[in-house]
Amino acid sequence: MTEPFDPVRLTAELIRCPSVTPAEGGALELLERELSTAGFACTRVDRGGIANLFARWGARGANRSFGFNGHTDVVPIGDAAAWTQDPFGAAVVDGFMYGRGATDMKSGVAAFVAAAIDFVRETPPDGALILAITGDEEADAVDGTVALLDWMAAHGERMTHCLVGEPTSPNVMGEMMKIGRRGSMTCWFTATGVQGHSAYPHRAKNPMTALVKLLARLEEKPLDEGTDHFDASTLAITTIDCGNTATNVIPAKGHATVNIRFNDLHTGASLADWLSSQAAAVWADTGVEITCRFQISGESFLTPPGDFSDMVAAAVQAETGRKPELSTSGGTSDARFVKNHCPVVEFGLVGKTMHQVDERVEVAQIGQLKAIYTRILRDYFA
Amino acid sequence: MTEPFDPVRLTAELIRCPSVTPAEGGALELLERELSTAGFACTRVDRGGIANLFARWGARGANRSFGFNGHTDVVPIGDAAAWTQDPFGAAVVDGFMYGRGATDMKSGVAAFVAAAIDFVRETPPDGALILAITGDEEADAVDGTVALLDWMAAHGERMTHCLVGEPTSPNVMGEMMKIGRRGSMTCWFTATGVQGHSAYPHRAKNPMTALVKLLARLEEKPLDEGTDHFDASTLAITTIDCGNTATNVIPAKGHATVNIRFNDLHTGASLADWLSSQAAAVWADTGVEITCRFQISGESFLTPPGDFSDMVAAAVQAETGRKPELSTSGGTSDARFVKNHCPVVEFGLVGKTMHQVDERVEVAQIGQLKAIYTRILRDYFA
Repeated sequence: MTEPFDPVRLTAELIRCPSVTPAEGGALELLERELSTAGFACTRVDRGGIANLFARWGARGANRSFGFNGHTDVVPIGDAAAWTQDPFGAAVVDGFMYGRGATDMKSGVAAFVAAAIDFVRETPPDGALILAITGDEEADAVDGTVALLDWMAAHGERMTHCLVGEPTSPNVMGEMMKIGRRGSMTCWFTATGVQGHSAYPHRAKNPMTALVKLLARLEEKPLDEGTDHFDASTLAITTIDCGNTATNVIPAKGHATVNIRFNDLHTGASLADWLSSQAAAVWADTGVEITCRFQISGESFLTPPGDFSDMVAAAVQAETGRKPELSTSGGTSDARFVKNHCPVVEFGLVGKTMHQVDERVEVAQIGQLKAIYTRILRDYFA
Repeated sequence: MTEPFDPVRLTAELIRCPSVTPAEGGALELLERELSTAGFACTRVDRGGIANLFARWGARGANRSFGFNGHTDVVPIGDAAAWTQDPFGAAVVDGFMYGRGATDMKSGVAAFVAAAIDFVRETPPDGALILAITGDEEADAVDGTVALLDWMAAHGERMTHCLVGEPTSPNVMGEMMKIGRRGSMTCWFTATGVQGHSAYPHRAKNPMTALVKLLARLEEKPLDEGTDHFDASTLAITTIDCGNTATNVIPAKGHATVNIRFNDLHTGASLADWLSSQAAAVWADTGVEITCRFQISGESFLTPPGDFSDMVAAAVQAETGRKPELSTSGGTSDARFVKNHCPVVEFGLVGKTMHQVDERVEVAQIGQLKAIYTRILRDYFA
């Protein structure tokens, strides 16, 4: 009898790969070896200097193709001196494994790989299992999951449903899964007025006054009150900058940036229209030219609650005793790309320490996550 | 018969002294030679690395001591390549003399020195003439006119009235004199909140949002509508800064600066109280700590219209045909220090090109200014 695949060992090995975006760091090579050995057809789908791995067990284009999406890249370690453990050491202390990517999301990848390898060996399903693992989720995500999906479309590869293994629970294992995400957009405002002497504001056109007027308008009332499955949309001023050090001078130019997280009442385009019209109104009012530059990182999306989310939720509840909340909270994830391909939900570990110094995962929860993923696969192909 | 003292020659010689604050540049040495030769008792009142010149003709503490205050320091030349003439060359082209300080205010100093030297020689007055000339008006003005006034108080020197020779007319010679100035103060706000993720503004405390709220409150309505002799007070946002480049991060700290020019309805202290209370209100409202640092550059002051201003105005009108407006407009000047010592008014040349590239003075107006100053002296001692 073959031993079950140990997701804790694989998590540790992945943490020891220094795969800070865009470095591959050996992480995808390691996965490719493990998956190939287990009978998965592996293809490296590298693009723009980013390494990505596509792996499939079973037939291409099968009617039931369960997909998993995750990433092996990690954010930088930050202040190295502040870590109590080697950020690429995978040391286990008091039941926690330490390292960058311990929760986000090398453990999630390891848990699914372990579940998938055991599952296809023990109960080969009537269908296919696909893993789309990227090395570019934490940075621009331009050549990551998108590159994998583009390649899949071009090669007749498809997933019928997909699970993204990002950490989804704020504090306690199993308390939350994601069935969508708010959209995210950023607007950079540049205000160009007329420089002048502080003693004569009426002879100048102060770009900072115009920006204050504009930002006060934008924050005047909430964007909305939330919808059935979404929190309220939010707007955050992330910076205002001018750089004028002369107190007797009104500057000519200023900058401000806002980031909006929006629900299904808005689109990136509708918000860009709104921001432009607000800027135009302040321009007309003050004579200060205000231009806008937009970046829409992702539109909001929802996989409406139904069979797929019910199945995942039931598996979580069976293994943890907790019925997960079906949430659309949080930042963006690569699910925003996958949703154009097939229904997608997200479930993973507790995200509390992600991106922080001393990022760590409770070792016992890696096994628990493998059990949840195993149960999902079993139920999916039942 | 002695030739009249030529103020144009002296202006040119002063322009050729590179006296960019805090450099003396030979300018005060030159004046000391000219005034000593003419019988003025000269004392260098240097302090804190700044050169200043005190000169008196007549008896110390005379009942009628006419004072003149001016400066020989100049602001930097700025973009040297943009000048069409040597900024320290005093070239005369088409009736204009070019150079840094040509209007602000080496010509004004030269005109008064020329008037004073001729006056005491031709019609020695029953009283004293005092010149308090500083090398630090354009920068911090900490060791300039204040040093002279401190030294004068300590040595029993006093002026009964004082004329400041700064440029006072915006466009046309003789159109304006100053009988006071608005006060000036600067407030630096520092807002300290709680950093967070842009997707969760309610979990962070955004210092930029708090600053926008505060600045919008400050600009909500005018400080006042002006008073009998003063324009309305003004408030200008001179900068807002944060420096956060991450659009998914709400920053922890932000800064903003406002500069207020205020009339006799306010004092630096009353405005500091107002700004502090506004900041405290926003702090209470947002939970973002807002601290204020103040610098009061000068309180507002007024030499009420009366005999002294009438006499100066009459002299201007006699020489130019224009009745000067009695104004309190403009930035600050060293009159803000002199007003603690004796009644003070200001009259000088057209300031249009001051602090600019190709600063220049109409040569004919230097002689005209000497004539006005001469008439003022004659009338004062009549």
